[in-house]
Amino acid sequence: MKESNFETTMRSKVKRVPNRGKYDRETVFEILDEGFVCNVGFEVKGQPFVIPTSYGRDGNSLYLHGSATSRMIRELEKGIDVCVSVTHLDGLVLARSVFHHSMNYRSVVVFGKAELIEEKEEKIEALRVITEHIIAGRWEEARQPNEFELKATKVLKLEIDEASAKVRVGDPVDDDEDYELDVWAGTIPIRAEYGEPIDDSLLRKGISLPANISDFGNRKGNK
Amino acid sequence: MKESNFETTMRSKVKRVPNRGKYDRETVFEILDEGFVCNVGFEVKGQPFVIPTSYGRDGNSLYLHGSATSRMIRELEKGIDVCVSVTHLDGLVLARSVFHHSMNYRSVVVFGKAELIEEKEEKIEALRVITEHIIAGRWEEARQPNEFELKATKVLKLEIDEASAKVRVGDPVDDDEDYELDVWAGTIPIRAEYGEPIDDSLLRKGISLPANISDFGNRKGNK
Repeated sequence: MKESNFETTMRSKVKRVPNRGKYDRETVFEILDEGFVCNVGFEVKGQPFVIPTSYGRDGNSLYLHGSATSRMIRELEKGIDVCVSVTHLDGLVLARSVFHHSMNYRSVVVFGKAELIEEKEEKIEALRVITEHIIAGRWEEARQPNEFELKATKVLKLEIDEASAKVRVGDPVDDDEDYELDVWAGTIPIRAEYGEPIDDSLLRKGISLPANISDFGNRKGNK
Repeated sequence: MKESNFETTMRSKVKRVPNRGKYDRETVFEILDEGFVCNVGFEVKGQPFVIPTSYGRDGNSLYLHGSATSRMIRELEKGIDVCVSVTHLDGLVLARSVFHHSMNYRSVVVFGKAELIEEKEEKIEALRVITEHIIAGRWEEARQPNEFELKATKVLKLEIDEASAKVRVGDPVDDDEDYELDVWAGTIPIRAEYGEPIDDSLLRKGISLPANISDFGNRKGNK
């Protein structure tokens, strides 16, 4: 295994369709960086929870944040095992047989334990990473957190030490004999489309749209 | 609570920002029906997993399927607690303060225990529901599962008895004094865009695109 690859164990190794599994940092980071919402899985007294939430990444660190009163945050800060998943759906794969219908997607699963960021400067930096993850430049544009807001927010760091990606691309794959069937087969591509920014209805007159926001859809690949 | 509402308990009640919580069947079903991928959370020996997978819904039943050898399926069929989450991201909400940045979204969380469908007719019907969930009409167009494929596939049913939705819409909400700031605020809408269907590169000549597929993007709200 190359040094830039993530550790894999029984829990992170892609077992079904193993050739879809990817363990290199570049693939994992690209998928994480493109998303806005991750699904955080954890367990409380035997009950599993899956909570969608925003996140940010800097190097090998994945940051999650929330209200200091949030159940998810209060549980995760105990250092329990957590599983974070990010998925991009790229297309519907329509095969000639129902059995071989599939989807094109890129997904990442990260395993580990989160820890609460106690140190103030590190916490502010993590909030900057989460904010800049939404839209680059926003941290400097917006009013930054005050003492009250910092106290009301908790930020967790999850080291991305064990992670795997799973990627499917391309055409359907049918059984040999089914290629003769009189059935259309192919893919329907899916992508996120970013609309024109909408002014807040209470926006003060005379405030213009910054370039990082007006240009956002183009940067994200709108067509 | 209205009769058409889902049961809520400590695990499904929306505690943070409670006015975003919705418990009526109509809202929950609409969100489920629009999605293609759910995130399935479960726990094996204290280790939480979150696995993205496709699904279908018929009435109060959510169907999941997979290879008979899949770890997820083999664990879930034991009747362990499971949490299924579906999220649609509708927009980035850019407030004047970093603290009030948010997202517009519609999400559902379903709690329960899945059970293996043993009976053949019921299993075939569940596979029909999952296939039609991807694209209506596909079950009749494509070659339906043979005996071998039915044996290789397991289908699980999760009764949607306890579920909650969480929905955020609209403008950012800033602190009163921040409305005076010289900061642009508003939302960037996000929606799924469905591309033109792409013929399989091995598609036999003379097979034309069925209307349910050529029209798919329009039906799903392409602009």
